[in-house]
This record gives sequence, C-alpha cells and structure tokens, in this order.
Amino acid sequence: MASNQSRALTEMYVHWLSRMAAAPDMDLDTMRDLFDGWGRVTGEPDAVRYADADAGGIPALWAIPDGAPDDRVLLYSHGGGYVGGSSHSHRKLAGHLAQAAGVRALVHDYRRAPENPHPGPVQDARAVYDWLRAEGFAPEHIATVGDSAGGALSIALPLQLRDSGAPLPGAIVALSPFLDLQATGATVETNAAHDALASKGMIEQMAAIFLGADGSPTDPLAAPLHADPSGLPPIYISTGGAEVLLDDSRRFAAKVEAAGGDVTLEVVPEMQHVFHFLAGRAPEADASVRGIGTWLRKQLDVS
Amino acid sequence: MASNQSRALTEMYVHWLSRMAAAPDMDLDTMRDLFDGWGRVTGEPDAVRYADADAGGIPALWAIPDGAPDDRVLLYSHGGGYVGGSSHSHRKLAGHLAQAAGVRALVHDYRRAPENPHPGPVQDARAVYDWLRAEGFAPEHIATVGDSAGGALSIALPLQLRDSGAPLPGAIVALSPFLDLQATGATVETNAAHDALASKGMIEQMAAIFLGADGSPTDPLAAPLHADPSGLPPIYISTGGAEVLLDDSRRFAAKVEAAGGDVTLEVVPEMQHVFHFLAGRAPEADASVRGIGTWLRKQLDVS
Repeated sequence: MASNQSRALTEMYVHWLSRMAAAPDMDLDTMRDLFDGWGRVTGEPDAVRYADADAGGIPALWAIPDGAPDDRVLLYSHGGGYVGGSSHSHRKLAGHLAQAAGVRALVHDYRRAPENPHPGPVQDARAVYDWLRAEGFAPEHIATVGDSAGGALSIALPLQLRDSGAPLPGAIVALSPFLDLQATGATVETNAAHDALASKGMIEQMAAIFLGADGSPTDPLAAPLHADPSGLPPIYISTGGAEVLLDDSRRFAAKVEAAGGDVTLEVVPEMQHVFHFLAGRAPEADASVRGIGTWLRKQLDVS
Repeated sequence: MASNQSRALTEMYVHWLSRMAAAPDMDLDTMRDLFDGWGRVTGEPDAVRYADADAGGIPALWAIPDGAPDDRVLLYSHGGGYVGGSSHSHRKLAGHLAQAAGVRALVHDYRRAPENPHPGPVQDARAVYDWLRAEGFAPEHIATVGDSAGGALSIALPLQLRDSGAPLPGAIVALSPFLDLQATGATVETNAAHDALASKGMIEQMAAIFLGADGSPTDPLAAPLHADPSGLPPIYISTGGAEVLLDDSRRFAAKVEAAGGDVTLEVVPEMQHVFHFLAGRAPEADASVRGIGTWLRKQLDVS
C-alpha cells in the first residue's frame, strides 16, 4: 500500500486540478507559478550546495553533493509539459539524484512553449550538452536525466546526438517520461481513475501547445516513442503504477529491448506522476532514488 | 545611479502589479504563488547547504554556510505582508546573509493571514526562538532578522520577549521593515512615484488582513513603530531610498536613538523594497549584505 507520506504529492495534484478547474482561463504566469511549487513536497537534500551557471547562454543551476568529483555530471532537464517547471522547481529533486549518484547535476532551464514550441526545448538541451563537453566533460561521463517532458528530453537529446553523429552520453534516466503526444497508451484509460494529475485531455492540450502550428506528433524528437532507439546508451526508466503515462514507459522499454538495447524499467505500484518529487519525504521515492543512484554510479564509473 | 542589475527587482515588481491589476479578485493561492517567486531575482549563494527542520512544530529551513559554527544563528522571519512568502521564497536571501555573517540561519514559516491574523505570526516566531534556546543556543548568540513584515517580526519578537521577562537576542536586523500599519509616513506620499511595489492602498489592504476583526493598528507587537524601544539589543536597519516604507525605518530609528538605544540606519539610494533580494546579482545588495554581515559578526562575537 502506498505510504501515508506519499499522499502529499497526490493531495498537491488534486489541489492543482481544483485550481485549474476553478480558473479554466488560467493565464500562463499563474500556471507557471503553480508548477514552480512542485518541489514543495520534496525534502531538502542536506549535503548539497548550489551555484548558478550560464551553460552556453542557457540559465542553469549546479547541484553539487559533498565530495562529488568534478568530472561526472547529470544533465538534468525538468518537466512541466514543456510549458512550466524550471531549475527552481526541480532543484531539490535533482539534488537528491545527484547525492544518490555521487556526482553533480546541472539543472538547466530551456525555452518553453507556447512562446517556443518544439524543437526549442531539445535544441536548448543540446546547447547545454555542447557546453558541458566544451567545459571538459567526457561524453561517457555525462548522463541525461529528466522527468515527464524532461524525461522525453533525456531521450530526445541522445537521439538528436546520434542522428547528428555526435558522441553519446554514458547513460539515460527518464522519470515518468512523456513519450507519446497522442495519448494512445492503454493506461490512459485504465489508469484514468487513479492518476491524480494527468489525463487524456491534459496530454492533448500540452501536446498541442508544445507542437505549435508546425510540429508533428510523431516526430521522434518530440515523441521518442516513435524513435528507432538503436544505439542508445543504457536507459533506466522509473514510473508510477497509477500513471496514465505508464504505458509510454512500457512501450518504449519494449522497443529498446526489441532493438537489442540495455533498458531497465521500474514501475512502483500506486505511485503518481513523478513520485520522485517525494524524495526526502516518502519511502517509495527514497528507494527509487537510491536504486537510480546505484545504477548511475555503475554507468558513469563513479568510484 | 542605480545599477542595471538592480532593475531586475523593479521589473519583477512592475510585473507583479500588472498581474494584480489584471486580476483584481486574485485568489489567495495565486497571490502566494506569486510571492513565492520573490527569490527568482536572487543569485544562488554558492557555499551554503540546506536542511529541513521542525522548530517546535514550526516548519523551517536551515541555511548552513561552509565552516559556520553550530552555536550562532540568525532567526530569519520572512516578509510578504503576513499573507505570502515562505522559507522557500527567502532561502537564497537568508543564505547570503548567513554566508556574510559566517553563521547558520534558520528561516521559519509561520501561520499567515487571513487564516491566522495577528498575533499568530509573532507567536510562531516566539515558538521558534524558544525551540532554538531549548536546542542550546544562548540568547546573545541569536540574532532576529527579517524583511518587510518579517522585519517587523524581527523587532516584535524581542519586544515580546522583553515584555514577558525572557532573555533577549544579541542583535536585530530589519530589512525594509513594515512598522506602521496606518501608512502615515511622509514617504508614503513622497516616494509614491518611485516605489515599484508598495503603496498606501497596498499597505492598508495588508494591514486590514493582518489585523483581522480584533487587532489594533497601534498594537506595538503588530506595528513596532508604536513600541517603547527601550532595552532592545543593537539594531541594524537597511532600507531602500525609493521606498514608501522608508519613513517607517527613519522614524523607528529616531525613536530608538531617543530612548538611548544602539541603532544603525542604512538607506541605499534609489533602491526598492527589500532590494537585498538582489544579493548575488546587483552591487547595491551585495554591499549591503556585506555590511550587515560584518556588523552581525561583531554583535554575535563570531571569530
């Protein structure tokens, strides 16, 4: 059974939806402020320092655990439907992952929709990757990591690198990734009554804003479910069992496996969308973050 | 002339006011989300770690600079008109002050109006003070620090301690404090065209919410301008020259001086309400924070 502590996230999502329902014409600033409070449910990681960064013109935030080496890094892309979220909302979550992996994280902002539809976000993620390489990080010592829309970016960026012939990162971690812009997964229906936040309607709305006038919902860089996943580095996907997006993860993991790739899929029963936000607060999130950290240490060869 | 960097705060306030004007019936959640973004203008202090705390039932956040001793503390009360603000919005600002003073800060939440009008906030600040004492902090090694409404709390708490016969903290720092709930200062008029955020109307609205049905606007614990300041520890007040609240600071400093107290008043020309939020970003804020830190090191006897 889900822990009592994990209810904090469910309750926050219920409150978000009630606010959205009460303000159907909610303006963009209000919506973004709401998403910027995502990290309120996260406990403060207690051995992490932070520093602002200008990652090749992209604002970003370093999360630096005590004792972390300076040559390994998690390139963290935040979620928020490509519309909201920021390095602020995801600071503590990235800090927990960095602490668990024993390496620093760079949480980057990116141009968001509707002002900047696809491919703005993935282009900015690429700029951050190129900046890290120029700063001296070896590709195999970089992991792309993200949640929800950022989980899609954590996969889209390596796809884009592969397709352009650039060196790939050493690992990918996708938390509750948003991989199918058309909401065709079976769990969109079967988990409709269990997911406290996402829904077919919300997915379609976010997809339309993200794709803008010109984007295709089957563009693999926008919806990695449609990608050929051949040649990607090892991938760790962690998703909640109560999510409508659960089948995005299952179907993508199956594609990777079918292509001979190295993929680990964790589905934590009863957990909500990006339950990892409960790190430092609920046992399910702490266990998941520990597992991800152990896996990342191995992939990035952290001593 | 005000630095270019300092315009970030002015622009944020202008944006806040335009959002409030566009939504005259803005609900409380939206208003609080807006205030929770206050720290977006603050640079990340780069040698500070954080940890959640339960300060005698009051949620709080430790900001712990590298090398800070564990027996000196800034008890930080956040601003936000007693309605908004939190340990989240003020994390970085408190971190900068802690770093400058070379001691840890404890940024506490408190019950806010309208759900909890006066004296809810000062009672919660008192609970945090008592908790710190129970944790072993000597009164003379505690400084009460705050901004805006929290600047009033940083003075109201020592007043309440004095009146109840409890030991006083070693120092008080009030940033742009909100000390007069009736908006009677001359700068309410003379700075009306210069202050990008506060106004007579906003002061009166905040005061009404904070006082609720039963509060008096001349209660010294709600409006320390009306207090007898005798016997308070040394006080440092820092305020912006463009503020409508400037005269709150001037008049209170004059009262402390007339009562034979030890008061330092810094007025930084052209600066806006709680310009200290620009720490890590604008030279005026960095200079002010350095000065406050130097003064605090002396008062708290930090080696």
